[in-house]
Amino acid sequence: MIYFDNASTTKIFKDVAEFMCVYSQENFYNPSGIYSKSIKVFSDLENAKNKLREYLGADDFQVVFTASATEANNIALSSFAQKNKKILIGGGEHSSIYETAQHLKQQGFDVDFVHLTTEGKVDVDDLTNKLNDSVGFVSIMHVNNETGAVNDIANIAKIIKNKTKNAIFHCDGVQAFCKINTNLKHLGVDAYTVSSHKVHGPRGVGALVFRKELPIKTFIFGGGQEQNIRSGTENVAGIMAFLMAVEKMQKNLKSNFEHAKILKARLLQNLGDINFVLNGNQENDSPYIVSLSFKTKGEVLLHMLEEEEIFVSTGSSCNSKHKGNRVLTEMGKDKTSTDGNIRVSFCENNTEEEVDIFCKVLKEKLDKIKGLNIWKK
Amino acid sequence: MIYFDNASTTKIFKDVAEFMCVYSQENFYNPSGIYSKSIKVFSDLENAKNKLREYLGADDFQVVFTASATEANNIALSSFAQKNKKILIGGGEHSSIYETAQHLKQQGFDVDFVHLTTEGKVDVDDLTNKLNDSVGFVSIMHVNNETGAVNDIANIAKIIKNKTKNAIFHCDGVQAFCKINTNLKHLGVDAYTVSSHKVHGPRGVGALVFRKELPIKTFIFGGGQEQNIRSGTENVAGIMAFLMAVEKMQKNLKSNFEHAKILKARLLQNLGDINFVLNGNQENDSPYIVSLSFKTKGEVLLHMLEEEEIFVSTGSSCNSKHKGNRVLTEMGKDKTSTDGNIRVSFCENNTEEEVDIFCKVLKEKLDKIKGLNIWKK
Repeated sequence: MIYFDNASTTKIFKDVAEFMCVYSQENFYNPSGIYSKSIKVFSDLENAKNKLREYLGADDFQVVFTASATEANNIALSSFAQKNKKILIGGGEHSSIYETAQHLKQQGFDVDFVHLTTEGKVDVDDLTNKLNDSVGFVSIMHVNNETGAVNDIANIAKIIKNKTKNAIFHCDGVQAFCKINTNLKHLGVDAYTVSSHKVHGPRGVGALVFRKELPIKTFIFGGGQEQNIRSGTENVAGIMAFLMAVEKMQKNLKSNFEHAKILKARLLQNLGDINFVLNGNQENDSPYIVSLSFKTKGEVLLHMLEEEEIFVSTGSSCNSKHKGNRVLTEMGKDKTSTDGNIRVSFCENNTEEEVDIFCKVLKEKLDKIKGLNIWKK
Repeated sequence: MIYFDNASTTKIFKDVAEFMCVYSQENFYNPSGIYSKSIKVFSDLENAKNKLREYLGADDFQVVFTASATEANNIALSSFAQKNKKILIGGGEHSSIYETAQHLKQQGFDVDFVHLTTEGKVDVDDLTNKLNDSVGFVSIMHVNNETGAVNDIANIAKIIKNKTKNAIFHCDGVQAFCKINTNLKHLGVDAYTVSSHKVHGPRGVGALVFRKELPIKTFIFGGGQEQNIRSGTENVAGIMAFLMAVEKMQKNLKSNFEHAKILKARLLQNLGDINFVLNGNQENDSPYIVSLSFKTKGEVLLHMLEEEEIFVSTGSSCNSKHKGNRVLTEMGKDKTSTDGNIRVSFCENNTEEEVDIFCKVLKEKLDKIKGLNIWKK
């Protein structure tokens, strides 16, 4: 089996899953309890927050663990977006930002979207034009989940700070964390979202990390857990397992990155002589994500590859319930490109041999359908 | 070690934890994907919903899995409570209902609370008086998490239906599910909340089960997962593990209940000759929870018991960040009783021998502090 859908979700590390299994039994106590066993679990939770701060270079930031990055993004928007201030959203954001922003718009919030370049990055000129003192909140993702386009967050943060009166800048870092440099001080962001299941951690864990002084609101009411931002008994075993996965990923961040670069370059080289479009920019994008378009339906290719136990996606899983491909369309891609899109996304465990097999199988499949009515001229 | 804090959280079943460990590795695929491996995981998720419906006798109900019962309760209130209709809330609700209701009140919603009897049940006369056509939503818990008081939900549901024009009736069943009969058709509720970690399932899983025709709202925006009610990649391994725990608990529901009854009776009999107050009613309350008050600080007793590796709580963990004991106060208990409260909560694995040791140790500890300044006259 060849699994090339790591931007959708990664396989949990075996030792991380086993650790979670043991921890959940040995340390099942409620962290809100007042006896020693509970206090130990609560202290594990605090240590997990400190570790996450450390990995993000975010000593002065507050951490709230959530059940998903989607929830973290919802908390960010519902807390930081104000009705009397303009809200600017990147044109290629994940649906958890995009749909929340659309909801805010329906509620009467002043929401505007920043265009993408043809390469899938936020158009910095358009952003600059739209920034002024009336803007109170900006959310722009770090690495696009469809194309791997990397926004220059440090530069964008500077522009936002220069052109606005303390607008809050949130960045969705789900596809960046543990893959590229995500030092928040270096990036200059005010809030950042990360996910566990994209970095071989367990499902059901995410986090919003934000400057302590920001006006955060309660999202889930109840026992007051997570600094009264999102109540509910904390999933400490899941959180500890997440941090274990992060630790492993951070240790190998650079070598993993180089490995992913080799995989992406090899894939594009192997496909060199066939007719395809690369959605994005080979040099500057994340090497973990490759967005390709062919003159057929992406779905047809996906299922043909699946026959050979090769798994890719047609864009984001979190977009699978919506029609078309919003991000590619925003990049100005035509219908042939958006219909014929497949996304190949790597993790560090993928091999060059897998890339070779993928390319060989893909070429065979393409040869089969060329000339059929599912092939576009 | 004697663990008598099962109302706070239970220890995950060993085989459930191990199953989750294996499932999360073998079936890590994103259920939103369109290839067979993903579709299999999505179908597991659907089967889990069907199983939960079956165990709750709720064929016509919709299930939304959440990250906690607290989240499920928040979804229920934010969806079903309407601004132009009166909202009635039980006087002893868990903080996830109580605090959400307080928030709604601050937002201008018309919220009223139903008094408790001295035994900790919802006062049915007070409820009846407060019900009329202007009431649009009622939330009353099944089993009180502080005292074990059981509300007669079937009767309350009938009264609500008789006295209102289709008011929606939500019931928080966290301390009831897998412990007493929770057949939703029999109970006549419109919506019901359950939790995984109270029934030896993993942390981070809960569910809201509600009649399909109810006007549910999106709580977390994004990829549209969970019927667009709460987006975010589904924690399928956790959900499957939850259902495995439920299956085990349901199989032994009756024998477990009888066992808990023996434990509670034995505890109260053993303590018979010392000076204490039972907060509640021995005969009618859940046998899983025993709320006791002594003429000292509950916290002092808790730590003295902890010295002997016996773990109880001073009321709800989810109330540990709030001052005093809201439920006991609402029952009319005086300050001595609320200050001197400890909660003993059983699971089916506790033994009569543990009860005997607990009573023996408790008596010794009480003897030690009698006459000291922490002993109230």
